Amino acid sequence: MDLAPLPGFRDFFPDRAARREYLFARWRETARRFGFEPYDGPPLESVELYRRKSGEEIVGQLYAFTDKGGREVALRPEMTPTLARMIGTQGASQPKPIKWFSMPQLFRYERQQRGRLREHFQFNCDILGEASIEADVELVALLVETLASFGLTARDFSVKVSDRLLLVAVLEALGIADGAARAQVFAAVDKLSREPREKVREKLVASGLAARTTDDLLELLAAHDLSRLASRFETAPQVAERVLTLQRFFGLLECMGLGGFAEFDPTIVRGLDYYTGIVFEAFDREGKLRAISGGGRYDDLLENLGGTPLPALGFGMGDVVLGEMLTERNLWPAKPEGGLQIYLVLVEEALRPKMLALGHTLRRAGFRVDYSLATLAVGKQFRAAAQRHAAVAIVLGPEEWLRGAVKLKDLASREEREVSVAELEKALASLPS
Amino acid sequence: MDLAPLPGFRDFFPDRAARREYLFARWRETARRFGFEPYDGPPLESVELYRRKSGEEIVGQLYAFTDKGGREVALRPEMTPTLARMIGTQGASQPKPIKWFSMPQLFRYERQQRGRLREHFQFNCDILGEASIEADVELVALLVETLASFGLTARDFSVKVSDRLLLVAVLEALGIADGAARAQVFAAVDKLSREPREKVREKLVASGLAARTTDDLLELLAAHDLSRLASRFETAPQVAERVLTLQRFFGLLECMGLGGFAEFDPTIVRGLDYYTGIVFEAFDREGKLRAISGGGRYDDLLENLGGTPLPALGFGMGDVVLGEMLTERNLWPAKPEGGLQIYLVLVEEALRPKMLALGHTLRRAGFRVDYSLATLAVGKQFRAAAQRHAAVAIVLGPEEWLRGAVKLKDLASREEREVSVAELEKALASLPS
Repeated sequence: MDLAPLPGFRDFFPDRAARREYLFARWRETARRFGFEPYDGPPLESVELYRRKSGEEIVGQLYAFTDKGGREVALRPEMTPTLARMIGTQGASQPKPIKWFSMPQLFRYERQQRGRLREHFQFNCDILGEASIEADVELVALLVETLASFGLTARDFSVKVSDRLLLVAVLEALGIADGAARAQVFAAVDKLSREPREKVREKLVASGLAARTTDDLLELLAAHDLSRLASRFETAPQVAERVLTLQRFFGLLECMGLGGFAEFDPTIVRGLDYYTGIVFEAFDREGKLRAISGGGRYDDLLENLGGTPLPALGFGMGDVVLGEMLTERNLWPAKPEGGLQIYLVLVEEALRPKMLALGHTLRRAGFRVDYSLATLAVGKQFRAAAQRHAAVAIVLGPEEWLRGAVKLKDLASREEREVSVAELEKALASLPS
Repeated sequence: MDLAPLPGFRDFFPDRAARREYLFARWRETARRFGFEPYDGPPLESVELYRRKSGEEIVGQLYAFTDKGGREVALRPEMTPTLARMIGTQGASQPKPIKWFSMPQLFRYERQQRGRLREHFQFNCDILGEASIEADVELVALLVETLASFGLTARDFSVKVSDRLLLVAVLEALGIADGAARAQVFAAVDKLSREPREKVREKLVASGLAARTTDDLLELLAAHDLSRLASRFETAPQVAERVLTLQRFFGLLECMGLGGFAEFDPTIVRGLDYYTGIVFEAFDREGKLRAISGGGRYDDLLENLGGTPLPALGFGMGDVVLGEMLTERNLWPAKPEGGLQIYLVLVEEALRPKMLALGHTLRRAGFRVDYSLATLAVGKQFRAAAQRHAAVAIVLGPEEWLRGAVKLKDLASREEREVSVAELEKALASLPS
């Protein structure tokens, strides 16, 4: 038997599965705290759904095949097309704004590189049906709180925020109004974080931008300064308006106490064509990792996909980079949630029926309880309890049992005391959940 | 845009997604209470993995295709082959017994019939490395408790338990020792719940069984009586031994207070060839639905798959029949877990920054809070609060705010009182989670 999973796929043994559950639980809880509701779609969709959004070239990256009914289908590479499809059927009847989250596993058939995955899980949060900047604030606040729920602070990460509309207004004010030229500038700006400024400058000039305009633009982009943009383009009302909107955006985040987490960075473009307003990416401040999360406003996308016209915005956050970040910062919980609390130790096999009854009572009461299914020496049972990181052991010995009691042993402090069975649940009430 | 999902696949809109989360949460919690640990594998595996277990005929039912690397792959139709593969890599190093659970989505390409699904989610629980009957007891206790966690009682369902080894011993005592004849009897017995007894009798006789032996066997199977089997086959030690084992099995369940949930039913065979001991199925007592869950012991399977030889047993429980059962019994929670608790109502837009700050503080404190992102009349905000089933509304009015207070309104009782912002979290402490 070939024991490895398919290349690019992961097995989740219990340690890794517990960490995945930890991520999912924080994702779910945080979304719920912000009033987002869960949704999900099928992991398999029609290829047409992705072709419509991303063009024919996406098909080459899909896990795509023809099914037995002759349908061209693909394992979902992203969630937005499914969301658009679902909103198309029920979007009109849902109260607005729609605030939905999901945690799909996504798939890409990329050329196999060392450690490069073909699947990952992604936290997706979207707000649909609200055009105001308040929705952008809400979404970025959720992103920040999600990362904060893992113990990450403003010293660990920052959300870099830009605005497509502001950049368009600035380009127009600089005389770059043509769509094709603008797209070239966007593409060049997108490279600023990865390529030397000089190289980007060359590209811009090569694409037809005047050298002076290029320098002007690059300097403005480098400044990360909204007020400076405002005063530089005093006479361009579109620039002024978007500056005000962005100032309101940052101001409202400030009100929520999240000012330190977000910063204006006009070099954030995000490659995807369909963004129409504020865009953002969350980055590790040490700059070691790829973006932890990214998103923005895509007001035209749903309609362009043939669905309901609704203003919309969202972000995605994958489990892989986030997991690397938590490892990097040593933020994984030492004891995973849901782990064993109580191990029952049986001194004499004759008491097994009593132990099963007690164990069942405790499990019913909500405690996480285990015991040896086979006859085992007491020492080995204690070893099993330690291996499983149980917090306490309850020892059923024949003498204590005759007195209606058991020994309760704290496995960390090694303290031990006799507790009557009737008092046991009370004595266990302080166990960490 | 074609708005429907692929045939046989489900979209999970928030109501349905919340129900799915409810199922998953109970599954996870119950498994954890029994000391089971989570695991998962990839949804895509090599076809070879399934061919090895189930033969070439399984391939016709798989969502199978050739990937871009020329590999024959399939969406997983069941979890056991993945489990066997994973145990093959780490089974030797894991402390025994291994108690693992997972909740995979599984796929079958079945001919499309009305409402017939091509995917479902399945709760899988397995114990590996323990040959004693105590493991069978533990597994069936977990099955019972899982169903009980949804409010199902012994009046709603029963776990019918049989034993392959007992049936083999009985057949041997009746003179049916040949493997092929035994397989035919197993297949005929498997039909007893769906076909008239007379038809099953004809089949058995046609397969070469003497008429008297056939009647004898059918009567024994119909009796569902272990002691009767024991006295009928006093001189067959294998029968006696398995009767004792089964009596211990039921006795230990009785000790756990679960006696009323399980019954001996020797007509339970379970079609799958690989079971080697106790087998069981959980049924709706009203008999309206298909089996809710099924499983048993498969001590030889892991080795036969080319992996680690380990005694093993497990069960699977799908989300579809279980969901139908909860609908049938009206046991879905009226208010899904994780729903909204607090809706903030803004009387004057000027207070929005204060509302955002307050909302964020409450969310940080763990409350699930929402508010309108747009300016909305107070009446409409209350309507949104009701639509979202919030428990309370917090009204930010300019006068109260000047006094450092808000109005707290219970949306069920419609009672309203003024609470100072400083006291607000305390006043909300009694909100149902």
